[in-house]
Amino acid sequence: MALIIQKFGGTSVGSVERINAVADKVIRTRKQGHDVVVVVSAMSGETDRLLALANDIAHRPDRRELDVLLATGEQVTIALLAIALREKGQDAVSFTGGQVRILTDSAHTKARIMDIDAARVRKALSKGRVVVVAGFQGIDADGNITTLGRGGSDTTAVAMAAALKADECDVYTDVDGVYTADPRIVPEANRLKRISYEEMLEMASLGSKVLQIRSVEFAGKYHVPLRVLSSFQDGPGTLITDEDKEMEQALISGIAHAKDEAKLTIMGVPDRPGIAYTILGPIADANIEVDMIVQNVGADNSTDLTFTVHRNDYDRAMEILQKTCREIGARGVTGDKRIVKISIVGVGMRSHAGIASRMFKALADEGINIQMISTSEIKVSVVVDEKYLELGVRALHSAFGLEKGANGAG
Amino acid sequence: MALIIQKFGGTSVGSVERINAVADKVIRTRKQGHDVVVVVSAMSGETDRLLALANDIAHRPDRRELDVLLATGEQVTIALLAIALREKGQDAVSFTGGQVRILTDSAHTKARIMDIDAARVRKALSKGRVVVVAGFQGIDADGNITTLGRGGSDTTAVAMAAALKADECDVYTDVDGVYTADPRIVPEANRLKRISYEEMLEMASLGSKVLQIRSVEFAGKYHVPLRVLSSFQDGPGTLITDEDKEMEQALISGIAHAKDEAKLTIMGVPDRPGIAYTILGPIADANIEVDMIVQNVGADNSTDLTFTVHRNDYDRAMEILQKTCREIGARGVTGDKRIVKISIVGVGMRSHAGIASRMFKALADEGINIQMISTSEIKVSVVVDEKYLELGVRALHSAFGLEKGANGAG
Repeated sequence: MALIIQKFGGTSVGSVERINAVADKVIRTRKQGHDVVVVVSAMSGETDRLLALANDIAHRPDRRELDVLLATGEQVTIALLAIALREKGQDAVSFTGGQVRILTDSAHTKARIMDIDAARVRKALSKGRVVVVAGFQGIDADGNITTLGRGGSDTTAVAMAAALKADECDVYTDVDGVYTADPRIVPEANRLKRISYEEMLEMASLGSKVLQIRSVEFAGKYHVPLRVLSSFQDGPGTLITDEDKEMEQALISGIAHAKDEAKLTIMGVPDRPGIAYTILGPIADANIEVDMIVQNVGADNSTDLTFTVHRNDYDRAMEILQKTCREIGARGVTGDKRIVKISIVGVGMRSHAGIASRMFKALADEGINIQMISTSEIKVSVVVDEKYLELGVRALHSAFGLEKGANGAG
Repeated sequence: MALIIQKFGGTSVGSVERINAVADKVIRTRKQGHDVVVVVSAMSGETDRLLALANDIAHRPDRRELDVLLATGEQVTIALLAIALREKGQDAVSFTGGQVRILTDSAHTKARIMDIDAARVRKALSKGRVVVVAGFQGIDADGNITTLGRGGSDTTAVAMAAALKADECDVYTDVDGVYTADPRIVPEANRLKRISYEEMLEMASLGSKVLQIRSVEFAGKYHVPLRVLSSFQDGPGTLITDEDKEMEQALISGIAHAKDEAKLTIMGVPDRPGIAYTILGPIADANIEVDMIVQNVGADNSTDLTFTVHRNDYDRAMEILQKTCREIGARGVTGDKRIVKISIVGVGMRSHAGIASRMFKALADEGINIQMISTSEIKVSVVVDEKYLELGVRALHSAFGLEKGANGAG
C-alpha cells in the first residue's frame, strides 16, 4: 500500500461531469489499496471570472484581498469533489490550504510555502478517507489567506507529497507525458518513461509547458517522484525522478523549442567593466525578462552584445536599447523578431564529449545557419531563423536517434 | 465616537455597482467619526448557483462539504468590498468567519454561534481600519467550516455587535423599517420609530419577514440595539431595543398577518390524556411545522382539535390526520386551505385590559367571522377566511389608531 498524491488542474475539474470523472479515477486508485490525497485547482474559467470582478472595482486591487477572493475558486472545487466522492460511496474530506495548515510567507499573490503541517491530513487518511486539498493557497503566520501564483497547484501537490513522504505525486494534465520533442512537429516523437528533475527543469524553461518550474524544483529538492499523466486517457505517463544509471546511458532526452523569442544586438560597445549592466539594467528595470545573452570581445577594443527577449517585449526593449546606445556611444542597434530557439537536453552530456558538435553538424547538414549558441551542463541551445523550426527539430530528433525508443522512451 | 456594525444582505451587494454603493455608505459612517464593522452576505444568486452545482453531483450532498462550498459566497463579497473600500481610500481588511474565530457548534448547514473572539477585529479597528466580516459562517472547535443556515448573516451581525459591545447593529434591507402593518395592504401604515425585541419576535413569527427570528432573539438576549434600515434610501429606520417607558404608553405596535396558512380539524376525539400527542406526534415526525393549536372540551367526553400548518404542507398533513382518525376512532376530519391569520402585537397588552375584546368587536363590526383564537402575553391572533384579509387588517389598524402616529410611529 502506497500513499499517492494526485493533482488535477482546472480543465480536469471544469464541469460537474469532469469532477465525477476525477472522483472515479481517485476511487480506482483507492481500490488498488493506496491512500490518496487529491490536490485540485479552481474550475477552469473561475479564477478569471473572480479577477474580472476585482478589476471592475479597482484598477490595482489590494493583493491581500485578491488572495481572499481567488482562494474561493479552489475551495469550491474541493467541496464539490468531496461531495462527488461521498456520493459514490468513498469517504472523503476536504481541506482548504489554511485548514491543512500550509504555511507560506506573506507575499500575497505569489507566496512561497514555508512549512506544511501533515498531522490533520495523516489523521484523516488513517480513518480511510480520501483527503481533498485546495491547491494554490495557504496561510501566513498571521492567519491571512495567501496564494502561490498561477500554476501554484502543482507546487502544492509536490509540497504535500514531500510533507507526507508520499510514494509518488501524480500530476494529471492535458498531455499524456513528456515527449522527446513536440509531437505536433515530430510525429515520431516518443513519450519518455523517465526523465531527471534537472532535465525537466531545462525542458520547462525551454518552452515545454507541462509542469510549473517551481514544482519541479521543489520535487527535485525533496526527491519527490513526480509523474505527468493525462486526465483524459489511461497510461503510465512520464516519471520525473532523481538521475539513475539507466539515464546515464542516454545521450540526450529530448529536443525543446521556444517560438516566441526575439533577439536584439547592440554593436560597437566600448569594452569596459560594467558595460553589460549598463545595457541590461534598464531592460530589467522595465520588467522585461532576458533569456540568452551572448557577448563577443571584438578586436578594436569594442564589443557586440546580443540578447533574446519574449517577442511581446521586443518593441519596448528596442526603444530602451536605442536610448542606451546614444548614451554610451555605441555604434548601433539591430534586432530580429523572426527567430526561434531549439535546444537539446540530456544529462548524458555530462559524461559524453562531442554532443554539441554533433548538434551543429546535424543543423549544418540541413543548411541551417546558427545565429547564437548558449550552453549549460545538460543542454545546448541555438537560435535560428524561425523558418527552420520544424526542419531543425526533426533533424536533431533524428540525429540523436530519439525516434528509435532509445533513452527510456517507449 | 461609536462602534457601529453594519449588515448588508445579498441584494445590497448583488453587483459591482451595489458593492461600490455599500462602500460609499460605510465611508460616510466612518467620516462621522465612528468605527465600523461590516457584515455581508453572498452576492444575490450566488448561494443558489453553488447549491445547484452540489445538487447536480449528489442527491443529498454531504453537509460538511456543503458548508465548505457555500462559505465561498460570503468570502467573495468580503474581498470585493474590502477592495472597493481601499480603492476609495479607506483602509479596510476582510475576515472570514474562521479568521475572526466565530466559533460554532458542529451542526453543519444550521450551526449555532457559541463564542466570538473579538481580539483580531479590535486590533484592526484600532489601526483605523474598516473590518469586513463574512456573515453566515463560522468554524467549529475542530476547525471545520460551518454555516448558520439561511438568514444567518443577520445573526452574525448581532453576535459581532454583542461580542464587540457595539453601540448599534444596523441591518440594511430592502424595506426602510418595521411598519404598523404591511403598507401594501394599509397605505396609511406608519413606520415605527422603536419596537421592543419581544414585539419584533412576534411580528417576525407572524409573517413580517424583515429580520431573521434568531437574530432578534440574540439581540434581545445581549441587549444589542438593532436598527432596520433601507440600503436603497436614507432614513432612520426602526430601532429594535429593550422595552422602555415610552413604549408602555402604547397599546399595540402593529398588525401582522400570515397568508399561507391552512387549518385542519379532527372531530369527536375520545378525550383522554395523551391524545394531543397521539394526533400531533405523527405530524411532527413528518417534519411538518404546526403553528396554532386549539382544543375545546366537548360535552360528550369527546373533543375537537384544530391546528394550522403551512399551506404547502396541507395535503400531507391531511393524509396523516385521516390515518390517525381511523386508528383512534375519532368521528371525522375536516380542513380549510382558504384561511389567513391576523394578529395584533404590543407590549401594552400586559398592562391594559380589554385589548382582545376591542379586536373582536372591530372584526365583528365588519361582519368578519373568527374561526380560531390564540393569545400570548403580547399578541392576539385570529384565523379568518382569506377573503377578509385586507378588510380585517385595515379595520384593526384603524381601530387601534395606528394611522395617527400613535405608539412611536412616525
